[in-house]
Order: sequence, then C-alpha cells, then structure tokens
Amino acid sequence: MTVDTSTQKALEKWVYVFGPGCSEGGAKQAALLGGKGANLAEMANLGLPVPPGFTITTEVCHAYNENNQKLPSNLKPQVAEALKVVGDLTGMGFGDLKNPLLVSVRSGSRASMPGMMDTILNLGLNDETVEGLAVRAGDERFAYDCYRRFIQMYADVVLGVDHGVFEDILENYKNLNAMSQDTDLTADHWRSVISSFKKAVFDNAGESFPQDTSEQLWGAISAVFGSWQNARARTYRLIHDIPDSWGTAVNIQAMVFGNMGDTSATGVAFTRNPSTGEKELFGEYLRNAQGEDVVAGVRTPQPLLRSAGHKPGGSVLSLEVLMPKTFELLGQVLEKLERHYGDMQDVEFTIESGKLWMLQTRAGKRTTTAGIKIAVDLALEGVITREEAVLRIDPQALDQLLHPTIDPSVRNKKVITTGLPASPGAASGRIVFTSEEAEEMASEGEDVILVRKETSPEDIHGMLAAVGILTARGGMTSHAAVVARGMGRPCVTGAGAMRVDIDAGTLRAGSLILRKGDVVTIDGATGRVFQGSVRMRPAELTGSFGTLMSWADDFRKLDVRANADIVRDVRQAHEFGAQGIGLSRTEHMFFDEVRIVAMREMILAEDSEGRRRALQKALPMQRSDFQSLFEVMAGFPVTIRLLDPPLHEFLPHEDRDVQAVARELGVSGEKLRARISELKEFNPMLGFRGCRLGVLYPEIVQMQAQAMFEAAVAVYKKTGERVKLEVMIPLVAYRKEFDLLAGEIRRVAKRIEKNLGEKIDYEIGTMVELPRAALLAEELAAGEDGASFFSFGTNDLTQTCLGLSRDDAAMILEAYIREGVMAVDPFVSLDESGVGELIRIAIERGRRANPDLKLGICGEHGGDPRSIELCHQWGLDYVSCSPFRVPVARLAAAQAQLRSLEK
Amino acid sequence: MTVDTSTQKALEKWVYVFGPGCSEGGAKQAALLGGKGANLAEMANLGLPVPPGFTITTEVCHAYNENNQKLPSNLKPQVAEALKVVGDLTGMGFGDLKNPLLVSVRSGSRASMPGMMDTILNLGLNDETVEGLAVRAGDERFAYDCYRRFIQMYADVVLGVDHGVFEDILENYKNLNAMSQDTDLTADHWRSVISSFKKAVFDNAGESFPQDTSEQLWGAISAVFGSWQNARARTYRLIHDIPDSWGTAVNIQAMVFGNMGDTSATGVAFTRNPSTGEKELFGEYLRNAQGEDVVAGVRTPQPLLRSAGHKPGGSVLSLEVLMPKTFELLGQVLEKLERHYGDMQDVEFTIESGKLWMLQTRAGKRTTTAGIKIAVDLALEGVITREEAVLRIDPQALDQLLHPTIDPSVRNKKVITTGLPASPGAASGRIVFTSEEAEEMASEGEDVILVRKETSPEDIHGMLAAVGILTARGGMTSHAAVVARGMGRPCVTGAGAMRVDIDAGTLRAGSLILRKGDVVTIDGATGRVFQGSVRMRPAELTGSFGTLMSWADDFRKLDVRANADIVRDVRQAHEFGAQGIGLSRTEHMFFDEVRIVAMREMILAEDSEGRRRALQKALPMQRSDFQSLFEVMAGFPVTIRLLDPPLHEFLPHEDRDVQAVARELGVSGEKLRARISELKEFNPMLGFRGCRLGVLYPEIVQMQAQAMFEAAVAVYKKTGERVKLEVMIPLVAYRKEFDLLAGEIRRVAKRIEKNLGEKIDYEIGTMVELPRAALLAEELAAGEDGASFFSFGTNDLTQTCLGLSRDDAAMILEAYIREGVMAVDPFVSLDESGVGELIRIAIERGRRANPDLKLGICGEHGGDPRSIELCHQWGLDYVSCSPFRVPVARLAAAQAQLRSLEK
Repeated sequence: MTVDTSTQKALEKWVYVFGPGCSEGGAKQAALLGGKGANLAEMANLGLPVPPGFTITTEVCHAYNENNQKLPSNLKPQVAEALKVVGDLTGMGFGDLKNPLLVSVRSGSRASMPGMMDTILNLGLNDETVEGLAVRAGDERFAYDCYRRFIQMYADVVLGVDHGVFEDILENYKNLNAMSQDTDLTADHWRSVISSFKKAVFDNAGESFPQDTSEQLWGAISAVFGSWQNARARTYRLIHDIPDSWGTAVNIQAMVFGNMGDTSATGVAFTRNPSTGEKELFGEYLRNAQGEDVVAGVRTPQPLLRSAGHKPGGSVLSLEVLMPKTFELLGQVLEKLERHYGDMQDVEFTIESGKLWMLQTRAGKRTTTAGIKIAVDLALEGVITREEAVLRIDPQALDQLLHPTIDPSVRNKKVITTGLPASPGAASGRIVFTSEEAEEMASEGEDVILVRKETSPEDIHGMLAAVGILTARGGMTSHAAVVARGMGRPCVTGAGAMRVDIDAGTLRAGSLILRKGDVVTIDGATGRVFQGSVRMRPAELTGSFGTLMSWADDFRKLDVRANADIVRDVRQAHEFGAQGIGLSRTEHMFFDEVRIVAMREMILAEDSEGRRRALQKALPMQRSDFQSLFEVMAGFPVTIRLLDPPLHEFLPHEDRDVQAVARELGVSGEKLRARISELKEFNPMLGFRGCRLGVLYPEIVQMQAQAMFEAAVAVYKKTGERVKLEVMIPLVAYRKEFDLLAGEIRRVAKRIEKNLGEKIDYEIGTMVELPRAALLAEELAAGEDGASFFSFGTNDLTQTCLGLSRDDAAMILEAYIREGVMAVDPFVSLDESGVGELIRIAIERGRRANPDLKLGICGEHGGDPRSIELCHQWGLDYVSCSPFRVPVARLAAAQAQLRSLEK
Repeated sequence: MTVDTSTQKALEKWVYVFGPGCSEGGAKQAALLGGKGANLAEMANLGLPVPPGFTITTEVCHAYNENNQKLPSNLKPQVAEALKVVGDLTGMGFGDLKNPLLVSVRSGSRASMPGMMDTILNLGLNDETVEGLAVRAGDERFAYDCYRRFIQMYADVVLGVDHGVFEDILENYKNLNAMSQDTDLTADHWRSVISSFKKAVFDNAGESFPQDTSEQLWGAISAVFGSWQNARARTYRLIHDIPDSWGTAVNIQAMVFGNMGDTSATGVAFTRNPSTGEKELFGEYLRNAQGEDVVAGVRTPQPLLRSAGHKPGGSVLSLEVLMPKTFELLGQVLEKLERHYGDMQDVEFTIESGKLWMLQTRAGKRTTTAGIKIAVDLALEGVITREEAVLRIDPQALDQLLHPTIDPSVRNKKVITTGLPASPGAASGRIVFTSEEAEEMASEGEDVILVRKETSPEDIHGMLAAVGILTARGGMTSHAAVVARGMGRPCVTGAGAMRVDIDAGTLRAGSLILRKGDVVTIDGATGRVFQGSVRMRPAELTGSFGTLMSWADDFRKLDVRANADIVRDVRQAHEFGAQGIGLSRTEHMFFDEVRIVAMREMILAEDSEGRRRALQKALPMQRSDFQSLFEVMAGFPVTIRLLDPPLHEFLPHEDRDVQAVARELGVSGEKLRARISELKEFNPMLGFRGCRLGVLYPEIVQMQAQAMFEAAVAVYKKTGERVKLEVMIPLVAYRKEFDLLAGEIRRVAKRIEKNLGEKIDYEIGTMVELPRAALLAEELAAGEDGASFFSFGTNDLTQTCLGLSRDDAAMILEAYIREGVMAVDPFVSLDESGVGELIRIAIERGRRANPDLKLGICGEHGGDPRSIELCHQWGLDYVSCSPFRVPVARLAAAQAQLRSLEK
C-alpha cells in the first residue's frame, strides 16, 4: 500500500490550542505535544490561570528534520488560526501596533531536557509595537527593556550571534554613563542600547534584525525545531537514552510579565521538599523580573516561605510576606496540581501586577531519600496506591542509600583522577599497594585504601582489610568490582589516567605523586578520587524506606537471596532481608594466609593420597566456616558451590614469592615453578576449573562435602533448625560430570549420616553457566539423580555466549556502547536476546525433564533491576545478588510483578 | 509390565548347529552368533567343507556375566543335543572311548578381536579316549601329541596355569634326553611328558586335570565367556570402541587335524594381496601342524604360491607344488567366498590327510593402498557396486597415503619419546629450538625439525621453514597441530615426557640429551619420535585412488573447499581437488619478518592517521598475496577472512626481544612495553580480536578490503576470469558489528570499482563461531545487507559452547575420555548434542531469514569424517578443511550421501 504523503500531511493537525475552556490537548498527549505543552493544556483544563497559547506538535519536528529543514506547507494557516484564537482570548493582536500580542516561544520534548533546548521571550516586538506596549503598560521603560531582551535572545537563538556581544555593549554603555545596575537605565537609555544592539546584529549576522513579526515568529519556530539536532541536544539524548525519534514540540504562548514593577514577580516552586521529601512548599522567586533572570543568576532569588529565609533577620523578603494573598493562591494551585498528577510537582509561575499565572508544571526531581518519603506519604495520604508508590522508586537509586556518601556541601574537593563507579559508597584512608601492607596497616587500626593495577583472588584478604579499593585497570565487572560489591566495599576501577608503580610504592596522577600512607578519598558512586579526607554523610535509612520495602515484599513473586561467603557478609545480607544464600563461593575461604598453605600442599601433592592428606588440614577450617554461615541462615536455603577457580590462582605469581612459598611448603623452588608452569593456562576462564577439578581430583569434592554435611549436622544439633543445604556443582557441560561429582557427594552424605546418626537435608544442583549446559538442560535435569536445581551463572554464561572475557572487555565495551553495537554493558544488564535466549532454552528444556526444577540466578545480574525483570518474566524462583543489592533486588522484583500485572 | 525372566530364558534358543545341510544360522546373524560362528554357518550353507559344530550365542555371554558367572540352567540340554548332532554327522561320540569326538572351543565376537579371546583345541581327550584316537588314527604318537597340546592349552586358559610351566618341562625333558625337535619325541616320550604336565597342573592349579570330558567342555565354555571381561579384552574394546554389551559367542566344532602326517597341513590365506591389493592368492601354511604352531612361530611357515617362495631355489616348498589338487580346490573355495561376501577374505584352513577343511573366513585386514585397489577392482569386476566401493574405504585412512611414512620394515628404531599424532607424515631433520634458528639452518639447505614447548603465531615462519614440528605441550588441536595440519607438515605435539630447555638449547628425554643440530625423526601418524634418521616410504597415490575419488565426487552433495593462506598450500589444495578456499586467514601473511614491522607500527600508532600510514606499507604486500591466491583459484570461490588474532600476538613476548623491536620501530622500550602491557589479556581467546579489531580500528578493514578488491580486479584483467570473492567477518556476535564492517567494505568496493572501472564480484558473510551468533542467526542473515553466507568456525564455537580452551584442554580431555564424560575429543569430532545443537539452531534461523543463505564449515572439523556426515545431514553447502584433508573430506562427503540414501 502506498500513501500519497502530501495528501496525508494535508490532513494532519499540526497545532493544538490551549487556554481557558479551549484546550485541545491534555496531559496524556506528551508524546505529541511534549511534556510542557501537554501540561499547559492540562492545567488550563483544570481551570488554573494559564496564559493562552498553542503547541506545534512533535510530528512537525520529524517532518522538518526529514525534509531538509523545511516546515510543512500547510502549517502556516493552522498557526495563523491559532494566533487569532489567542489574540481573541487576550484581546490583543499579533503585530497589532496599538495592542500588540507578545508571545514566548519554547521547546518541549516528551522527556525533560533541561537547558538543552532554546527559549525566546517577548516575541512580536519591533520598533513600532514597542510603542504600543509602552502605551498599554503605561511604562515606557518596561517596554524598551522587553524589546532589548527580545533582540538579545532572538539574535542568540535564531541568528547565532553570541550573547556576549550584547553584554559587552550594555557593560560599555553603563561604564560610559557611570551606571552600575540595569535598573539605572531609563527608556531613553534603552533606546540607545537597542540601536547599538541592532547594529551589532547586522555586523555579526550579516542581516538586519527583522521588524516583521511574522518573520520573527517563523524564524523562532524553525530555530527550536532545528535545535533538536544540535550537538548539545544529541549528546544529552545519548547520555540519557532518549530516542532521536521523539522530537520536540514548540509552545507559543501569550506573554505575561513578571517585570512590570514591584507587584510583579517570577519564580519556581516544588510542592514538597525535593531534598528531604517533607510536605512543605519549597521554592524561590524574583521580584520585577523575567524568567531568564532567575536562571542567569545576576540577582539572588528569595524564598517563597517566611520560615525559609536565608538569613534570619536579614533583608530577605519571602513571597509569603510580600504577597500573602497571591502566595495563598499559589499554595492552593500547587496542592491541586499535586493531587491531580499524584506526584510532587515542580512549577514555574509569573505574577503580573499581582495576578498569578502558571507557566509550567512537571514532576519534580528529588533525592532518593525524598523520593521514597514522597511516594510512601502520597500512598498513606491516599493520593496514589501502594503499587504506584512501589513502582515509583528507581531500584538502582537505593544502592546509594545503603552506603555513606560524599557530603555534597563540601566545596574545593581536589579530584586526583576519575575511574568507573564500580561499587557504591565513599571511603577515606591511607593508600597501600599490596594486600600484605593493607592487612598490616589495618591491624594497626588505620583505614586503608588498597591501590592496585588490578586485583586477583590473591588480593581478597587485602580487600577485606581495606575500607576501599582503587584500581587502574578493569571495568564495572572486573574482579575488583565484583568482589568489592560483594563485600560492600566502595570501589573505583579503571582509573586509567593514574599510574601505579607497585615496586616504587607510588601513585602518579598528572604531576601529583602520592606515596604509601598518603590519604585519599574514593567515591564509588561517581568514580571520583579525591586528595585527602573528604567529609561524608552516613547512610540514610528512613522509616519510609522500611515501609516501602515491606510493601515491595508483599507484591513480589521472586525470592531474593544473597551471594555471600563470609559471616559478616551473610549477616549483612540477612539484615537487608535476603531469604537465603544463593551462592557461597567456597574458594574465598581458602585465600586466607594460613589456609592457602593447605591448598598449596594439595596442589603440589603427587597423588590422591597426598592430596587427601593436605585437604584434611583444610577440613576443620572449612567446616567451621560453613557452620558459621549456617547458623546465621538457619531455616533458610544455603547454596554452597564446590571449589571453582583454576588451581594456579592459589599459587604465587611473582618470582620473588616463589622461593618463600617453596620454603614454607618444604619443596624445592624448581618443583614449585614446574607445577606453576604446568598449571599455567592461555585462557584460564576456559580451563581447568569448576567441576573439572572434581572430576580429576575427587578428593576435593569429598573433603568439601564432608565439611558441609558435618557443619549442617552440628548446626542442627545446636539450633534445632535444619539447614536447607543446596550443593551446587559449577561449570557443568556434560551430564556425566554432574553424575561423577554428585555420586561422590551422595557417598559422603551417606557416610556422615551413618556416622553421626542424623538425616541430612540436602539437594544437589548445578550452575548453568556454559552454553552447552543450557542446551543440554533436559539431560542435566532428567531422572531422580539429575540436578534438582539450576542456578544461572550469568557472568560466565555471558562470557561464553558472547565470547568476551569480562576482565578484558573494558575497552571493547566502551567502544561498542559508543558505536551503538549494544545499548548497555552486558555484564551489568543481561543480554536478553543472546544470553537470555540460552536461559529461556534451559528453562524450557529443564522443566520439560522436571517440572519441579528449582531455578535461580546467581550472576552479578541478580542485582540489576532490568535483569531481575527478565528473571521474573521467565518464571525463575529466585535471584541472588551481593548483600548490598538485596534491597535493590527486592524492589525490582516487586516492580517486575506489578508491571506484569499491568500488561 | 513385568516378565518372569526364568520363563523367558526357558524359551530361549541358546545353541545354533552348523554343518553340511544343517546350519541353523548364517552370515547375517553376526550379532547373535559372533563373526566366526555366523561365517562357519554361512560356509556350510554354501556347501563348503566345514567340520560340523555349533555356536552358543552371545546372549549366553550376557546372561553369564549378568548372573554372577553362572550359565543359564537350560543351556545344558541344548548343548547335549547339539553335541549329539555333531557326533551323528561325524560318526563319532563325545567321550566315546573307541571313537571319541574331539572339539575345538573358540570365542567369536561380532567384531574381530584378534588374540584377545581364548581358544582350546583337542577337547575331549583324556587318559582313555586318547587310546581310542590312537587306534582310530593309526598313529599313537599323533594322539599323545594332541593330548599334551590339549592339557597345555586347557590348563592355561581354564585353570590359569602359566604356559611357561609346560614349556619348561618339555625343554628339560628334551635336554635330559638329548633331543632338539618336538618331532624327535615318540608316543612314549609324550606319555612321560604328559604325566609331568598333569603333575604340574595339580601343583599349580591345586586340582587335577579333569578326566571327565563333560567337565572339560563346561570348563572351557565358562572360561571363554569369562574372558570377555578380562582386562586385556576390556582394554581392547575401549581402544577399538567396541561396546561391552556385544558379548562373545562360543564356537564348538569337531576337530580336524593338520598334524596327522605329511599329507596334513594347516594355514591361512587371503584372496588378494593385503599389502598391494593385487588379485593373487596370498598366504602361508605349515605341514603336519596344528593351528597354534603357525601363531607360535616355532616353525617358519611356507608360502601357498610357487611364485612367492621366500628364497628362490631354496628349500621352500609351496602348497601349490606340494599338494596341487588341494591347492586348486582351495583356490576355488576362496574365489567362491570372495564373490559370495563381495570382499577380500582372510581364511583359516586345515588339510587332514589330503582333505581340505575350512575353519574360518572373514574380511581380511589390508593396507589403505590395498583397500582402495581391492574396492575399485571389485567394483570394476562387477562384484560390488561403485557405491559399495566408495563406502568401503575409511576416509581417515587416506591421510596416511598423502604423506611419506616411516618404512615399517626398518627394525631397531630407537624411540626417544611419544606424543600425540598431531599431523600425519614422517620427517627427519636437525633439531632447532627457535623459529629464527629454523629459518637460518633451513636457508643453508638443512632439513630442520622445530622443537618448542608450544608454538605461537610468532612461530609460523619457523614452522614454514621446518620439515616437521615437535612440541612438549598442546593437544591434537593445539596451535602447533592446527597450523601443521594446515601446512601439511608432520607434527607431534604434547610429548610431555620430553623436557625442552629453549635457553640451554637442549631436549631431554630420560637420560638422553639432544642438542641443536642433532637429528631426529618424527612420525606424525603415531606420535613417535626416533633418534637419528629413519628410512621412509614416499606417498603412494595409485591409479585406483584417482578412480575412487572420481566416483566419490559423483556421489557427494557437499562441496569441499580448503583452508589455505599461502600460495603453496592453495596449490596443494587445488591438486587435491578443493573446489575453492573456505578460509584464508589474512594474519598468517603478517607474521613474516618484514611485514610484521608494518603491523607493529600500526599497533603503536597513536591515532587513526598513524594506523593508516603504517597499514599503507602493508597494503602492496597483502594485495600481492591475494593476487597469487586468486590466480591459483581463478573461477572458484575464495573466502578471505578479515584480520582475526589479538594484536598482542604481533608484539614480542620475551623481554630480550622488546629492546630490539623498539629500536627497529624507532620508539622507546618503555613505550613498547606499555603498549604490550595494555594489550595483555587474561583470556585472549575471549578478547580484543575478530571483528572487534575492525570496529575499533576501521582502517584495518579498509586496507584489507582495498587489497583484496584491487587484487581481484588485477587477476580478472590478467586471466579474464572473475574471482568469486567472499569477504568473511570473524567473531561476530551482534548484527551491528557486521553492519559496521560490511559498511566499510562496501564503501571501499564502490571506490575501487569507480577508480578501476571494473565491477567486483563479491559477497560479505560472517563466521558463526560464538553462541550468540548462532542464536541470533536470523538477525545476522536478515535483509539485503545481511550476511550472505555463514561459515561455522567450529573451533571457537566448541571452545565457547563447552567453555573449554583448546590450548588448555589436553589434560582435561584425556581424563574426560577415560572417565567416559565424552566419547571423543570434541575438537577433533564435532560435539553433536552441544555444538551441533547451536549449528542446527543457526541453520534453521538463518535460513528462515534468507532461504538462499550459503552455509559452510571452516573449523578443523571440516576434515573429520564423522563431522562431515553431520554437515551433510544438516544440509550445509560445503566443508572446508586443510589441504591434506581435502581427499578425506571428498570421500567422507560421498559416504555421508550414500548412507543417507540407504536410510
């Protein structure tokens, strides 16, 4: 089917009028009219005082930009018609010499793009109409002030003349005439300035300032539509994920004047405090001013509320005091708007000669703390439902509430370098360059920041000892980032501009050189690193937070568990409401300085017997670790993963360490080196790890199984509560791998049950973290001895599905997101169409074999709201994430459920 | 439904009689009767002289081994009945004192398991029946000779008495009595020996040698069934991939005697020469002997044919001369058997007092050369069809024909070490330890063997210079193996027992130390490494080979292309019948000492302009490379893959090389080191490579595209034939990656077409080597600008699907195959259920988007027959493999088609 587009366009309605009793649009048409236009129409419909005007739709923006910056030919008559309506409503005429209608021309997109698009006020003035305005207003100076403002803005926005040109002229003029304030200028002075302005326009733009008001109008309209494609706007859209296709609308509205003398004013107001969420009017105004004066910051605005005076007893005059009646009216309008929109509003208003006019309303930006309080309060006030309250909070934003943060009021912070915001929270401490130094200095009671090029599992104990971690390499999902988030440690990674010299013990950033013991502050929420100690604010968990979380728990279907290995983290997870442990990595227990020795002996053993002997030394330690975890999580499911990492991670990497370790183990350096070289791998991620360790060295599985079963029995005897133990086999690709290891585990369980005379409550399941496991899910889950649960290890599944190493991906991902290959980092937010497809396949096939198969996810994605929504849609039973993400996940899970109910 | 197994067993027919006119079985029942039993029945049916007997089925073997080594209770009456039939046919009676029936008891499985199972002859003799035999045969010495043989074999096989015990007794006896030959012993001597034998049985076995012939029989039957589970048999089955469940049958057959004097004999014969395939009787016999004498090697057998006398004019007497009539009859029997079975037969026969008896027939083992000639000749003779001929050759075996091989007649070869048979063929040369030494010594005209711990892309030029490659690490699909196979270089990898010290320039194997310049010989077909130079045989390509390949080409549907990068390989591929190039890796062109400099400059360049400048230096070289390839393959499709490997592969790895390279490039060592460290990756396989290079550095794509398009035009102008260029984008996971690079390529093509005034015939496609690409195949192939072909890169697809690094997998795969996790190395033969599933998904989804999508495979699997069969079943258009595998692939493709027609 072909459409004659010219015919189609001819039928288009391009223009929507708004005004008292005549609005053609409303709040629901934000896509067509932009947010500003839709809300102006809505306010007019509500009977609020809105200067009449009309909106040219976003459709025109498409047409304009697709048609070589040409406006549709049939737009003109529609605009003329609308202008006439506005003129009739105001009793004025556009271009009328006696009673000229002046308008503002403003952009307005569907999403708020503050400061990105351009605004022109007082349009319709020329050498003749200015006289008419002067007569009508009875104020010549006012009229010429408006005219000079108009020339300045129009020249800047439409003709591309830098506004500095006009400021210089005005500055010169005041100097020559010994004036200091704009208010010192009379109408005649302004006439003179205007004449210089017009000359400057001609000199700079190569054309005269247009006297034809119609030419002015169309110039302004084109400029606004054109500005949608300017560099600043494109960048903003890219950053804020706003589609190019949305386009902007243009709002043309009869001017009202806040600069008509002392009974006039202009200001902004919030219906509640955007910082705390308290229910109180909040805002600022300027007397005898136009809107751009507030923005320009030439004069200091004054508060609306008497109680909010900047300087108690000072010269400040609140609107409440200055214009009590108008203030009261404003309060009523704001209350009405908040109830109507069901959300805290941010409005612009103008008072012209004592009369209040509303120029804009929109949902106000707010801090997370305020956001939670407002949502909960609105629900308690009955303005919105609890479901709406829960849906209204961005789960990601919760993260910052749970950690101390840099106090935003601190000025003059010296930024040393900036990396990636890898794990939220801020921390100050002395820098150290090795894990040993970190432990040593921390044991002396110092707060330390561990600085490394990158971290490896050997650094775990140093990371534990540190209050924060800073690395030069690695992305948002590098080892440092993942472990730090798991531990709840603030972390900045990939600070590539910083040079770390471990041997010299220096950190260089530009010309600055820091040494061990120097103090820095890292901000894991922004990636910034500051010199010295910067003041912080503690975590703020308001009462509203608890209320909101309990509502979320009522709604969600997904369970939320935590990934946690050590008791402190397990406790933290429990406090944050985790319903069990979805992933406990047993290897983290072995990187401790003492325990690693047993591990190394095991690795160097010549035979099964030698390995068994070495592992026996680790057994009591591992058992006691498990026992502590189980006690905290008694009654909840606890998933323990068998040893996973490549064995070489337990051996020293640096030459200088080899001799020391060899001595400690009582073997020759040569032997140790030979074993290190034997275990060296080209691609450790795809090497000798996961269940492969257990297939080759079943002794490891036996020891770990023994430790967890004995711990489970001990905790039961102590607490009377049975541990719901879930033993998880990692990196399975073949059913036979699962069978071999599960066989070992079951044999150990039988033995312990017999020895200790207690039944053990346990299940055996598998990670699904390789494409083959996902594809063969039916086989893995089949039969009584099959996996009774799947836990999707989405980190590794992403690495293998995409063929992309998490630790090597930073440079690639940066370029890929820039080039639009992918929208988001797939290690942060699940790749729905690739990795997600594998998960869908695994779920379908796994459930085909066993409809009762338990399904969860334990990759980093378990704490990512977008990914949690997918998990909900796929019907998983639970997500598991790092302890500090548990509240995020609880909220995201509730939202997923509420959104699916909406559909 | 439950079955009363005792009832079911009662109904079983356990025993099948064979003999003239009474065979109950036939050749088709090999599964039930074993190969030997089935063929004995078949021969009897054909009217050939077969001593009567019966077969106890393989079902009994299952029953026996599943029921604690107990035979089914109802077997006895069936055996008794069969024994009676055999007695009637022979006119003798089992256990009859006067006219005793003697039998042989032999195992016989479905597959030939030579030497693995046990045989007992002359069963039925005891102190009394031996007298009867003596009387009947009129030869007392013969009877006692039979008796002592029986005791010896029975004691060995059934009672577990080492046969050395009896050999010692006989040896002692001969020494004491001053005798040298067995033939010196009379009946009385044998009686005396027998008495010592019986005492030895009692002493060693703790029980008397059984005089009850029935006890003898059941003891022997149980022993044969039991031997199915002995260690030797199990190992053999494991190696030869024979299922445990097949079981063995037991054949009990009336004895005929080749040891009844000078008109008696025993021998083996082939219907054609098993070494050359010539149509001529071939075999050996022993006069006056029993079967085991031939095997024991005590006496030297004599040839059947007069013309095959070992020593012309010597004392050798051929059967043709000695017993011309029997010889003629044997010839007729063999001719009949070959025609009947349609294949070359290997028979056992016995002549008893001038009468010929056939004891076994089976398809004869043969060399590959013979196999091809026989199959082709049989087809030309009309005995079998061409299809059968093509199906009969194992494609894998062709490989050895195409390379020189170690001469098997050479004795006393000293094996230094054994590794994996990574690339077939044998080579002798002086050992060198670096690629530089290899080039240097080769340039002096020496044959060199490059010895490395493992190879990396830096070694390509050394591998090219060498005649063979030997590595201490790496599996069948390691870098060395893959590259060597691609080059057709013999290669042994993973010779782990050998210690290579590159710095010292030594190779140690046990106590042996070899130095640079010492000569070794490697056998890439067996993995063995010999000291010194070992004599070799050249490749044998007979006329039959060509005939067979042309028939294969007539049948197959799959095209066969080659993976080849350099002109010599492309020529080789062309000679072997490749129908184009399926994969030309452009990076191999850059590891050359001169060109790598341009590559390094590119890598070190600060910006796009610097990269472009460096790449311009490489352009003419790459263009001329392409031009040479295109000329050889004019008229055929040539797939060129864009640069794929991680950039750090082009930079020096060793500290000592860094300074030299830095000097060469005119940059500081520090800068070079910084860049090396920047490009270092944890998992290079999952890193900055493939199309990712081109997304970040489009200049590389532009240069490569320019080189190939200009070369294509030049070749067209020169030859008048258009190159069918297929540009392949590697490691694609996202459609946008494809679009970005394809966009660059198309832009370059347009420019070149315009500049040179020629239309270029090219397509753009993608490797499918990541799970995500397979899953998103529909998107990749969609639309006019989508990929027009997919080439499955099964090496990487296997690595990512299984999460297993090819270079690190050796130890894991060895254990996994041993533990039965997988049946075969998935890098050698496609993992059908995992990787295959991804391929099936990709094919289905890709063709959904574009039914004309061209599909091929270019991983190592393209040369593996099992994988080729899968490719055929999936409906691929072509397979691409290394040049030396092209004939293998052609044959395998034909077989795949023929087998699918059979179904």
